[in-house]
Amino acid sequence: MAEKTLDTLFHDTLRDIYYAERKILKSLPKMAKAAQSAQLKAAFEKHKLQTEAQIERLQQVFALIGKKPVGKTCEAIEGILAEGEEISSDYKGTAALDAGLISSAQAVEHYEITRYGTLKRWALTLGLRDAAKLLDQTLQEEAKTDEDLTKLAESSSNLKALKTA
Amino acid sequence: MAEKTLDTLFHDTLRDIYYAERKILKSLPKMAKAAQSAQLKAAFEKHKLQTEAQIERLQQVFALIGKKPVGKTCEAIEGILAEGEEISSDYKGTAALDAGLISSAQAVEHYEITRYGTLKRWALTLGLRDAAKLLDQTLQEEAKTDEDLTKLAESSSNLKALKTA
Repeated sequence: MAEKTLDTLFHDTLRDIYYAERKILKSLPKMAKAAQSAQLKAAFEKHKLQTEAQIERLQQVFALIGKKPVGKTCEAIEGILAEGEEISSDYKGTAALDAGLISSAQAVEHYEITRYGTLKRWALTLGLRDAAKLLDQTLQEEAKTDEDLTKLAESSSNLKALKTA
Repeated sequence: MAEKTLDTLFHDTLRDIYYAERKILKSLPKMAKAAQSAQLKAAFEKHKLQTEAQIERLQQVFALIGKKPVGKTCEAIEGILAEGEEISSDYKGTAALDAGLISSAQAVEHYEITRYGTLKRWALTLGLRDAAKLLDQTLQEEAKTDEDLTKLAESSSNLKALKTA
Protein backbone atom coordinates (compact mmCIF):
# COMPACT_ATOMS: atom_id res chain seq x y z
CA MET A 1 0.00 0.00 0.00
CA ALA A 2 1.31 3.45 -0.93
CA GLU A 3 2.15 5.68 2.01
CA LYS A 4 -0.77 8.04 2.61
CA THR A 5 0.02 11.42 4.07
CA LEU A 6 -1.53 14.85 4.44
CA ASP A 7 -0.84 15.50 0.73
CA THR A 8 -3.04 12.53 -0.21
CA LEU A 9 -5.74 13.64 2.21
CA PHE A 10 -5.60 17.19 0.83
CA HIS A 11 -5.97 15.90 -2.72
CA ASP A 12 -8.82 13.51 -1.79
CA THR A 13 -10.73 16.27 0.01
CA LEU A 14 -10.15 18.68 -2.87
CA ARG A 15 -11.73 16.11 -5.20
CA ASP A 16 -14.64 15.74 -2.75
CA ILE A 17 -15.47 19.46 -2.68
CA TYR A 18 -14.89 19.78 -6.45
CA TYR A 19 -17.58 17.14 -7.02
CA ALA A 20 -19.81 18.85 -4.44
CA GLU A 21 -19.48 22.33 -5.99
CA ARG A 22 -20.43 21.05 -9.42
CA LYS A 23 -23.50 19.30 -7.96
CA ILE A 24 -24.44 22.50 -6.15
CA LEU A 25 -24.07 24.48 -9.38
CA LYS A 26 -26.65 22.20 -11.00
CA SER A 27 -29.06 22.44 -8.09
CA LEU A 28 -29.04 26.25 -7.71
CA PRO A 29 -31.24 27.03 -10.77
CA LYS A 30 -33.81 24.54 -9.43
CA MET A 31 -33.77 26.26 -6.05
CA ALA A 32 -34.09 29.70 -7.67
CA LYS A 33 -37.06 28.44 -9.69
CA ALA A 34 -38.71 26.95 -6.60
CA ALA A 35 -38.25 30.03 -4.40
CA GLN A 36 -41.37 32.13 -3.87
CA SER A 37 -39.91 35.50 -2.92
CA ALA A 38 -38.01 37.60 -5.46
CA GLN A 39 -35.31 38.23 -2.85
CA LEU A 40 -34.62 34.53 -2.34
CA LYS A 41 -34.63 33.87 -6.09
CA ALA A 42 -32.05 36.66 -6.48
CA ALA A 43 -29.94 35.22 -3.64
CA PHE A 44 -29.79 31.81 -5.34
CA GLU A 45 -28.96 33.38 -8.71
CA LYS A 46 -26.16 35.42 -7.15
CA HIS A 47 -24.79 32.31 -5.46
CA LYS A 48 -24.78 30.47 -8.80
CA LEU A 49 -22.36 33.06 -10.21
CA GLN A 50 -20.22 32.79 -7.06
CA THR A 51 -20.17 29.01 -7.34
CA GLU A 52 -18.86 29.25 -10.91
CA ALA A 53 -15.96 31.38 -9.69
CA GLN A 54 -15.36 28.99 -6.77
CA ILE A 55 -15.11 26.06 -9.18
CA GLU A 56 -12.50 27.97 -11.18
CA ARG A 57 -10.54 28.61 -7.98
CA LEU A 58 -10.58 24.90 -7.20
CA GLN A 59 -9.20 24.23 -10.69
CA GLN A 60 -6.37 26.65 -9.87
CA VAL A 61 -5.67 24.74 -6.64
CA PHE A 62 -5.52 21.45 -8.57
CA ALA A 63 -3.02 23.10 -10.94
CA LEU A 64 -0.93 24.33 -7.99
CA ILE A 65 -0.46 20.75 -6.76
CA GLY A 66 0.12 19.45 -10.27
CA LYS A 67 -3.08 17.42 -10.50
CA LYS A 68 -5.93 17.31 -12.99
CA PRO A 69 -9.28 18.65 -11.71
CA VAL A 70 -11.20 15.42 -11.26
CA GLY A 71 -14.02 15.04 -8.73
CA LYS A 72 -14.75 12.11 -6.45
CA THR A 73 -18.30 11.16 -5.46
CA CYS A 74 -19.25 13.12 -2.35
CA GLU A 75 -21.94 11.21 -0.49
CA ALA A 76 -22.39 14.02 1.99
CA ILE A 77 -23.54 16.55 -0.60
CA GLU A 78 -25.73 13.93 -2.28
CA GLY A 79 -27.54 13.44 1.03
CA ILE A 80 -27.77 17.16 1.82
CA LEU A 81 -29.16 18.00 -1.64
CA ALA A 82 -31.58 15.05 -1.55
CA GLU A 83 -33.06 16.43 1.68
CA GLY A 84 -33.36 19.85 0.04
CA GLU A 85 -35.26 18.38 -2.90
CA GLU A 86 -37.56 16.55 -0.50
CA ILE A 87 -38.44 19.80 1.30
CA SER A 88 -38.87 21.51 -2.06
CA SER A 89 -41.44 18.97 -3.17
CA ASP A 90 -43.13 18.38 0.22
CA TYR A 91 -43.64 22.11 0.84
CA LYS A 92 -44.43 23.19 -2.73
CA GLY A 93 -47.24 25.75 -2.71
CA THR A 94 -47.13 26.23 1.06
CA ALA A 95 -46.23 29.36 3.03
CA ALA A 96 -43.29 27.55 4.64
CA LEU A 97 -41.53 26.72 1.35
CA ASP A 98 -39.03 29.61 1.38
CA ALA A 99 -38.11 28.97 5.04
CA GLY A 100 -37.44 25.34 4.08
CA LEU A 101 -35.38 26.30 1.03
CA ILE A 102 -33.26 28.65 3.12
CA SER A 103 -32.62 25.95 5.70
CA SER A 104 -31.53 23.55 2.93
CA ALA A 105 -29.24 26.16 1.39
CA GLN A 106 -27.67 26.82 4.79
CA ALA A 107 -26.95 23.09 5.23
CA VAL A 108 -25.10 23.25 1.90
CA GLU A 109 -23.19 26.38 2.99
CA HIS A 110 -22.10 24.75 6.24
CA TYR A 111 -20.80 21.71 4.40
CA GLU A 112 -18.72 24.02 2.22
CA ILE A 113 -17.56 26.07 5.21
CA THR A 114 -16.24 23.01 7.01
CA ARG A 115 -14.51 21.59 3.92
CA TYR A 116 -12.87 24.88 2.89
CA GLY A 117 -11.84 25.53 6.50
CA THR A 118 -10.12 22.15 6.63
CA LEU A 119 -8.51 22.51 3.20
CA LYS A 120 -7.18 25.97 4.02
CA ARG A 121 -5.66 24.65 7.29
CA TRP A 122 -4.01 21.74 5.49
CA ALA A 123 -2.75 23.99 2.68
CA LEU A 124 -1.01 26.16 5.28
CA THR A 125 0.49 23.11 6.99
CA LEU A 126 1.74 21.86 3.63
CA GLY A 127 3.26 25.25 2.80
CA LEU A 128 0.84 25.82 -0.11
CA ARG A 129 0.39 29.53 0.53
CA ASP A 130 -1.21 30.39 -2.83
CA ALA A 131 -3.66 27.51 -2.50
CA ALA A 132 -4.51 28.61 1.06
CA LYS A 133 -5.26 32.11 -0.23
CA LEU A 134 -7.66 30.83 -2.90
CA LEU A 135 -9.37 28.50 -0.43
CA ASP A 136 -9.72 31.30 2.10
CA GLN A 137 -11.33 33.56 -0.50
CA THR A 138 -14.06 30.99 -1.08
CA LEU A 139 -14.37 30.30 2.67
CA GLN A 140 -15.11 33.98 3.32
CA GLU A 141 -17.70 34.04 0.51
CA GLU A 142 -19.48 30.98 1.88
CA ALA A 143 -19.58 32.42 5.39
CA LYS A 144 -21.03 35.67 4.00
CA THR A 145 -23.67 33.75 1.99
CA ASP A 146 -24.67 31.87 5.14
CA GLU A 147 -25.05 35.15 7.05
CA ASP A 148 -27.08 36.70 4.22
CA LEU A 149 -29.42 33.70 4.24
CA THR A 150 -29.92 34.07 8.00
CA LYS A 151 -30.81 37.75 7.53
CA LEU A 152 -33.22 36.90 4.72
CA ALA A 153 -34.86 34.23 6.88
CA GLU A 154 -35.21 36.58 9.84
CA SER A 155 -36.58 39.45 7.78
CA SER A 156 -39.19 37.72 5.71
CA SER A 157 -39.64 34.04 5.11
CA ASN A 158 -40.09 32.85 8.68
CA LEU A 159 -42.69 35.48 9.42
CA LYS A 160 -44.53 34.78 6.22
CA ALA A 161 -44.59 31.09 7.05
CA LEU A 162 -46.06 31.92 10.42
CA LYS A 163 -48.74 34.33 9.22
CA THR A 164 -50.76 31.67 7.48
CA ALA A 165 -50.28 29.17 10.32
CA MET B 1 -53.48 17.96 1.21
CA ALA B 2 -53.12 19.20 4.78
CA GLU B 3 -51.89 22.77 5.06
CA LYS B 4 -48.17 22.76 5.79
CA THR B 5 -46.79 25.61 7.83
CA LEU B 6 -43.74 26.53 9.86
CA ASP B 7 -45.00 24.23 12.66
CA THR B 8 -44.87 21.26 10.30
CA LEU B 9 -41.42 22.27 9.06
CA PHE B 10 -40.18 22.66 12.63
CA HIS B 11 -41.47 19.21 13.54
CA ASP B 12 -40.01 17.61 10.38
CA THR B 13 -36.59 19.18 10.99
CA LEU B 14 -36.68 18.17 14.65
CA ARG B 15 -37.24 14.57 13.54
CA ASP B 16 -34.35 14.91 11.08
CA ILE B 17 -31.83 16.04 13.72
CA TYR B 18 -33.17 13.51 16.25
CA TYR B 19 -32.38 10.72 13.80
CA ALA B 20 -28.99 12.31 13.06
CA GLU B 21 -27.99 12.65 16.74
CA ARG B 22 -28.75 9.01 17.42
CA LYS B 23 -26.67 7.95 14.41
CA ILE B 24 -23.82 10.19 15.61
CA LEU B 25 -24.05 8.64 19.09
CA LYS B 26 -23.46 5.22 17.53
CA SER B 27 -20.55 6.40 15.41
CA LEU B 28 -18.61 8.20 18.17
CA PRO B 29 -17.23 5.09 19.91
CA LYS B 30 -15.93 3.89 16.52
CA MET B 31 -14.22 7.22 15.95
CA ALA B 32 -12.72 7.17 19.46
CA LYS B 33 -11.42 3.66 18.82
CA ALA B 34 -9.93 4.65 15.46
CA ALA B 35 -8.21 7.83 16.74
CA GLN B 36 -4.45 7.56 17.25
CA SER B 37 -3.78 10.35 19.71
CA ALA B 38 -5.02 10.14 23.30
CA GLN B 39 -6.27 13.73 23.03
CA LEU B 40 -8.49 12.98 20.05
CA LYS B 41 -9.81 9.80 21.68
CA ALA B 42 -10.71 11.86 24.75
CA ALA B 43 -12.40 14.52 22.59
CA PHE B 44 -14.65 11.92 20.95
CA GLU B 45 -15.47 10.33 24.30
CA LYS B 46 -16.38 13.70 25.77
CA HIS B 47 -18.57 14.45 22.76
CA LYS B 48 -20.38 11.14 23.21
CA LEU B 49 -21.51 12.24 26.69
CA GLN B 50 -22.58 15.62 25.28
CA THR B 51 -24.54 13.92 22.51
CA GLU B 52 -26.48 11.87 25.07
CA ALA B 53 -27.51 15.08 26.83
CA GLN B 54 -28.38 16.70 23.47
CA ILE B 55 -30.68 13.79 22.62
CA GLU B 56 -32.45 14.27 25.95
CA ARG B 57 -32.87 17.97 25.17
CA LEU B 58 -34.46 17.06 21.83
CA GLN B 59 -36.88 14.77 23.67
CA GLN B 60 -37.83 17.73 25.85
CA VAL B 61 -38.47 19.84 22.73
CA PHE B 62 -40.72 17.10 21.30
CA ALA B 63 -42.64 17.13 24.62
CA LEU B 64 -42.97 20.93 24.46
CA ILE B 65 -44.76 20.69 21.10
CA GLY B 66 -46.84 17.72 22.25
CA LYS B 67 -45.23 15.18 19.92
CA LYS B 68 -43.59 11.80 20.46
CA PRO B 69 -39.82 11.71 19.88
CA VAL B 70 -39.66 9.84 16.58
CA GLY B 71 -36.81 10.27 14.11
CA LYS B 72 -37.01 10.53 10.33
CA THR B 73 -34.26 9.19 8.07
CA CYS B 74 -31.68 11.93 7.58
CA GLU B 75 -29.87 11.30 4.30
CA ALA B 76 -27.46 14.14 4.97
CA ILE B 77 -25.98 12.56 8.09
CA GLU B 78 -25.89 9.14 6.41
CA GLY B 79 -23.71 10.66 3.67
CA ILE B 80 -21.51 12.63 6.06
CA LEU B 81 -20.89 9.59 8.29
CA ALA B 82 -20.29 7.31 5.29
CA GLU B 83 -17.53 9.66 4.13
CA GLY B 84 -16.04 9.60 7.62
CA GLU B 85 -15.97 5.81 7.64
CA GLU B 86 -14.31 5.82 4.23
CA ILE B 87 -11.51 8.08 5.50
CA SER B 88 -11.23 5.95 8.63
CA SER B 89 -10.63 2.82 6.57
CA ASP B 90 -8.59 4.41 3.73
CA TYR B 91 -6.17 6.12 6.14
CA LYS B 92 -5.97 3.39 8.79
CA GLY B 93 -2.40 3.05 10.03
CA THR B 94 -1.22 6.25 8.29
CA ALA B 95 0.07 9.45 9.87
CA ALA B 96 -2.81 11.41 8.33
CA LEU B 97 -5.55 9.38 10.02
CA ASP B 98 -6.23 11.77 12.91
CA ALA B 99 -6.30 14.80 10.59
CA GLY B 100 -8.89 12.95 8.50
CA LEU B 101 -10.96 11.95 11.53
CA ILE B 102 -11.00 15.55 12.76
CA SER B 103 -12.17 16.80 9.36
CA SER B 104 -14.98 14.21 9.36
CA ALA B 105 -16.03 15.16 12.88
CA GLN B 106 -16.09 18.83 11.90
CA ALA B 107 -18.37 18.04 8.94
CA VAL B 108 -20.73 16.42 11.46
CA GLU B 109 -20.51 19.44 13.78
CA HIS B 110 -21.32 21.86 10.97
CA TYR B 111 -24.38 19.85 10.01
CA GLU B 112 -25.58 20.08 13.60
CA ILE B 113 -24.74 23.78 13.82
CA THR B 114 -26.84 24.61 10.76
CA ARG B 115 -29.81 22.49 11.89
CA TYR B 116 -29.84 23.80 15.48
CA GLY B 117 -29.40 27.36 14.19
CA THR B 118 -32.44 26.95 11.96
CA LEU B 119 -34.54 25.23 14.63
CA LYS B 120 -33.73 27.89 17.21
CA ARG B 121 -34.74 30.63 14.74
CA TRP B 122 -38.03 28.89 13.95
CA ALA B 123 -38.74 28.22 17.64
CA LEU B 124 -38.42 31.95 18.33
CA THR B 125 -40.70 32.80 15.40
CA LEU B 126 -43.25 30.30 16.67
CA GLY B 127 -43.08 31.74 20.19
CA LEU B 128 -41.58 28.54 21.62
CA ARG B 129 -39.21 30.25 24.02
CA ASP B 130 -38.38 27.21 26.15
CA ALA B 131 -37.66 25.13 23.06
CA ALA B 132 -35.46 27.92 21.67
CA LYS B 133 -33.48 27.95 24.93
CA LEU B 134 -32.84 24.19 24.79
CA LEU B 135 -31.87 24.35 21.11
CA ASP B 136 -29.54 27.27 21.75
CA GLN B 137 -27.80 25.38 24.55
CA THR B 138 -26.95 22.56 22.13
CA LEU B 139 -26.01 25.03 19.40
CA GLN B 140 -23.43 26.65 21.69
CA GLU B 141 -22.00 23.25 22.62
CA GLU B 142 -21.64 22.21 18.99
CA ALA B 143 -19.90 25.47 18.08
CA LYS B 144 -17.50 24.96 21.01
CA THR B 145 -16.79 21.36 19.95
CA ASP B 146 -16.01 22.56 16.42
CA GLU B 147 -13.59 25.18 17.80
CA ASP B 148 -11.91 22.61 20.05
CA LEU B 149 -11.43 20.29 17.08
CA THR B 150 -9.82 23.12 15.10
CA LYS B 151 -7.41 23.79 17.98
CA LEU B 152 -6.59 20.10 18.25
CA ALA B 153 -5.94 19.92 14.52
CA GLU B 154 -3.72 22.98 14.58
CA SER B 155 -1.74 21.87 17.59
CA SER B 156 -0.97 18.30 16.72
CA SER B 157 -2.55 16.15 14.08
CA ASN B 158 -1.78 18.25 11.02
CA LEU B 159 1.86 18.60 11.97
CA LYS B 160 2.18 14.92 12.74
CA ALA B 161 0.65 14.06 9.36
CA LEU B 162 3.19 16.34 7.73
CA LYS B 163 6.25 15.05 9.55
CA THR B 164 6.14 11.66 7.91
CA ALA B 165 5.28 13.10 4.49
